[in-house]
Amino acid sequence: MAKNSVLIVGSIAFDSIKTHKASAKNVLGGSASYSSISASFFAPTKLVAIVGKDFSKKHIDIFKKRGINLESLEIKEGKTFTWSATYDKDFKNATTLSTKLNVFSDFCPKIKEQDRDTKVVFLANIAPSLQLEVLKQLKGPRLIACDTMNLWINNNKPELLKLLKKVHILFVNEAEARQLTGSYNLIEAGRKILKMGPQIAVIKLGPHGALLVSKDCLCQIPPYLVEYPKDTTGAGDSFGGGFVGYLASVKNWHSLKNIKRALAMGSVMASFAIESFSVSKLASVDKTKIDKRLKEYLNASKI
Amino acid sequence: MAKNSVLIVGSIAFDSIKTHKASAKNVLGGSASYSSISASFFAPTKLVAIVGKDFSKKHIDIFKKRGINLESLEIKEGKTFTWSATYDKDFKNATTLSTKLNVFSDFCPKIKEQDRDTKVVFLANIAPSLQLEVLKQLKGPRLIACDTMNLWINNNKPELLKLLKKVHILFVNEAEARQLTGSYNLIEAGRKILKMGPQIAVIKLGPHGALLVSKDCLCQIPPYLVEYPKDTTGAGDSFGGGFVGYLASVKNWHSLKNIKRALAMGSVMASFAIESFSVSKLASVDKTKIDKRLKEYLNASKI
Repeated sequence: MAKNSVLIVGSIAFDSIKTHKASAKNVLGGSASYSSISASFFAPTKLVAIVGKDFSKKHIDIFKKRGINLESLEIKEGKTFTWSATYDKDFKNATTLSTKLNVFSDFCPKIKEQDRDTKVVFLANIAPSLQLEVLKQLKGPRLIACDTMNLWINNNKPELLKLLKKVHILFVNEAEARQLTGSYNLIEAGRKILKMGPQIAVIKLGPHGALLVSKDCLCQIPPYLVEYPKDTTGAGDSFGGGFVGYLASVKNWHSLKNIKRALAMGSVMASFAIESFSVSKLASVDKTKIDKRLKEYLNASKI
Repeated sequence: MAKNSVLIVGSIAFDSIKTHKASAKNVLGGSASYSSISASFFAPTKLVAIVGKDFSKKHIDIFKKRGINLESLEIKEGKTFTWSATYDKDFKNATTLSTKLNVFSDFCPKIKEQDRDTKVVFLANIAPSLQLEVLKQLKGPRLIACDTMNLWINNNKPELLKLLKKVHILFVNEAEARQLTGSYNLIEAGRKILKMGPQIAVIKLGPHGALLVSKDCLCQIPPYLVEYPKDTTGAGDSFGGGFVGYLASVKNWHSLKNIKRALAMGSVMASFAIESFSVSKLASVDKTKIDKRLKEYLNASKI
């Protein structure tokens, strides 16, 4: 595997989403879908995930078109994981209507021999035990980033804490940061996360940007402003994928300059993700569109 | 009046504040106190306000030390306006326990003849009818900025809308922006505010920074991050005062570069305000401390 590839493990799902204005049924979703497509614009991307036999060529082609390596995509007898949810007006809250794990309940990520020396890995949101399983199979990646969610913080905290000791970068949203650390104050929460293992805590603030807490830096970045988001599903995953993909493409991911640029890339990729249902917009952009939006973002952020 | 002076009209109060960690009784507060002290670091500042006979030399001296012109501070028989409130943990919400207008209920701002050609005016948070009264007495200021609050949006909307037609810059917080426009979406709310008159809407996002909406610019700036605020009272007033004071000190307040720098100055001044009860910290800083913090802020904001 090329030194600057990124290996992404996470969920692939069929999402059914209802917003206050529109709805979409059984569209491609899941943490690995958004994050791998987002990362693929910056670095060669390998996907480790599981789907059912109902996962059609049409879906496969979305990843293939982005040049994503699917050798470790397991296609198993049964149905793909499904998730359905409704958002209230302005995407303040998502209410899960149903979650059917289907083939995902048997998922045990297997990393191919030739991928075990992968240098950059993004453990997108899945159970911490599975994220740990992936790390066990890898030969010391130089960058391990991970995402998680309220469910695991509630039900699988010991595994999550074990995982965090091995992780360089943790992505959480505001509610997760508070839940994980017991601190409402997000800066304090970020500092507590650093004590759990990660060198960097990225607290995603949704429409307000993101807060970066590390030993050397405390800063907040604005979002790429989208006036009317269509569906905010996958925003965080796209942010994480763009962030990690960008860091995989640079020589020194520890440099603050690169980390800040990664935050900008994450923000730009998230902005595309929320402009359509599913990955439609995100998967259809190109380097020119990304660069244009990045330039706009940097310009707007200049004080 | 020098071309670059700023005239500030608003309330002066004695605040009694209880936070989850500490409390302060009968300390100097009010929109005009915070905003005039904040502005005074950038431009000669004139204060138009009313206090009672209980307003002591100690209080007067706080303004005098900042070189604020008090010729239009009316000292009237009776007691100064008092406000008492408690904040819940992490300053999510303030609950007003009591408001006693006292002499403020008779306030009718009078602008002295020599101040009527003032070029920059900040109508800090008071009733829109009083803000209108001030404008009526002025001979076409080149910059009129104004703040308001939920109470006036609820009870005095016609006057407020009349006022907004004459105003260049409106400061509101998230809740006020939504209440004023009926739009939960803050970008949409900002655009609706522009249709009400102002050229610029600054939506203050509390710990998340501020959103600027104008014809030419849509951007969000981060806050100057303060890990443990002591008391967030006056943060918005100090932000507004610093913002307007800075614009009073530049040749062309319309330039986007200056407006963005004003946002940065507002953020820095607000960060001082929340590090103590009352204006203690804000009034005791100096140009060196402000410049140091501005440099830190600009550095942290650089992406």
